[in-house]
Amino acid sequence: MKKPSIIHHPSSIISNTPTKVGVFDSGAGGLTVVKSLLKHRLFDEIIYYGDTARVPYGPKDPATITRYALEALEFFKNFEIDLMITACNSVSAHALPELRAKASFPIYGVIEPGVLALKNAGLPNSSRILILGTRATIGSGRYQNEISRLGFSNIEALSPSLFVPLVEEGIFSGELLQSALDHYFADLTPPDAIILGCTHFPLIADAIRDYFPNRPLLIHSGEAIAEHLESSGFTPERAKETELRIFSSDNPEALKEIAKKWL
Amino acid sequence: MKKPSIIHHPSSIISNTPTKVGVFDSGAGGLTVVKSLLKHRLFDEIIYYGDTARVPYGPKDPATITRYALEALEFFKNFEIDLMITACNSVSAHALPELRAKASFPIYGVIEPGVLALKNAGLPNSSRILILGTRATIGSGRYQNEISRLGFSNIEALSPSLFVPLVEEGIFSGELLQSALDHYFADLTPPDAIILGCTHFPLIADAIRDYFPNRPLLIHSGEAIAEHLESSGFTPERAKETELRIFSSDNPEALKEIAKKWL
Repeated sequence: MKKPSIIHHPSSIISNTPTKVGVFDSGAGGLTVVKSLLKHRLFDEIIYYGDTARVPYGPKDPATITRYALEALEFFKNFEIDLMITACNSVSAHALPELRAKASFPIYGVIEPGVLALKNAGLPNSSRILILGTRATIGSGRYQNEISRLGFSNIEALSPSLFVPLVEEGIFSGELLQSALDHYFADLTPPDAIILGCTHFPLIADAIRDYFPNRPLLIHSGEAIAEHLESSGFTPERAKETELRIFSSDNPEALKEIAKKWL
Repeated sequence: MKKPSIIHHPSSIISNTPTKVGVFDSGAGGLTVVKSLLKHRLFDEIIYYGDTARVPYGPKDPATITRYALEALEFFKNFEIDLMITACNSVSAHALPELRAKASFPIYGVIEPGVLALKNAGLPNSSRILILGTRATIGSGRYQNEISRLGFSNIEALSPSLFVPLVEEGIFSGELLQSALDHYFADLTPPDAIILGCTHFPLIADAIRDYFPNRPLLIHSGEAIAEHLESSGFTPERAKETELRIFSSDNPEALKEIAKKWL
């Protein structure tokens, strides 16, 4: 079995000196990844860039997503970051090779860490795995391929496109969300594990898990990347305080408001 | 009462020669306006440009929306169009002055025609008017101001943000749509007229009207602009066939698929 490509990178960032990370997302969703990074106290400084002027990426073409990701890379070049995390699954699915070819620092996506988290969960190969993601992420086949390489064959992939706008609308529970869960999940056999393959989904994780009577294991990109960095030798002295700076391509005030609510 | 500004423009396009119109929208939604233009056979050629790489505009900042609209204007300069219609309400609400200042052809928004259609419906001033639009459109106050200038004082404005993604997901009826209608409308006193202030909303017009037992009058941007052009002296020989060319900033194939379905 070929190992996921990310595990070739961490040696370059083993460090116990202060580090600065750039977190890139199509919009506000990546703040769920920031939340995990803050919780694990992995960085002294987080530069967050949300491309809110062009959000969402999920329904857009891979070539467009890659073009936007390369522009974000240019943005981060002004900040002397030590590494970059593409919190957005759609970017992680399509743009990593191009980003890595053009960057002078390591770049982490969220797909490989999520797949590794599933692997580490030690579920039997007969388990039913449900992958949830945007059209761009699911369309790339990246999760499907990596997970089938782990030996799972009972894999279902789904794009519940309304989950993102529901979260953006601040709907984390209630009838409308239940109705949306019904719309997408009613015909599914309950899965054993669910990949939350979009940064918005952790905000409705409870509702997603509770929908299925067996309460499946959930894999969360933010937790997965934080744990992956820790487990692969990234053990800086814990930051007592992390400085978080938020930038966006649209009005940054709206994004800062969301950050206050979510973090 | 000050007349809506659009009625100063039509004289410049009174014509009975073949005409070419540019229709601009943030994405696919403006195709509902194209549908009306085709039905009324007003143009020989329609150039449609959907900024699908940055859709939706509705939640974005007015400055960003205006910047995008000016880029669309540059796009249309290559086509020698006779007039331009900004089918997008969010653009119509924020960018018309800047567009008109930079264009060599007349530019029509959809807000003034919608307001005129409401005026022409001849409802009593005590009528309850419900305006539905994106956050950008409602936030501009444009509809509210123009409609109160008509003498209505019972005006409610609402941004049912999930309607756009519901339509994009192809959900035009059923439980999930009903649940969304409940979410936004349950506490409203039934209105006498509803402004469908977003190009996506005509696709769920039946469900919106049927939600209210009194079946309110609906104002549809596409019909409003077509009727406005006709009533203000725009009476070209009816085109036997209209050539429709579709362009987009993202992959145009997806947009062409939607056009096939909607038109």
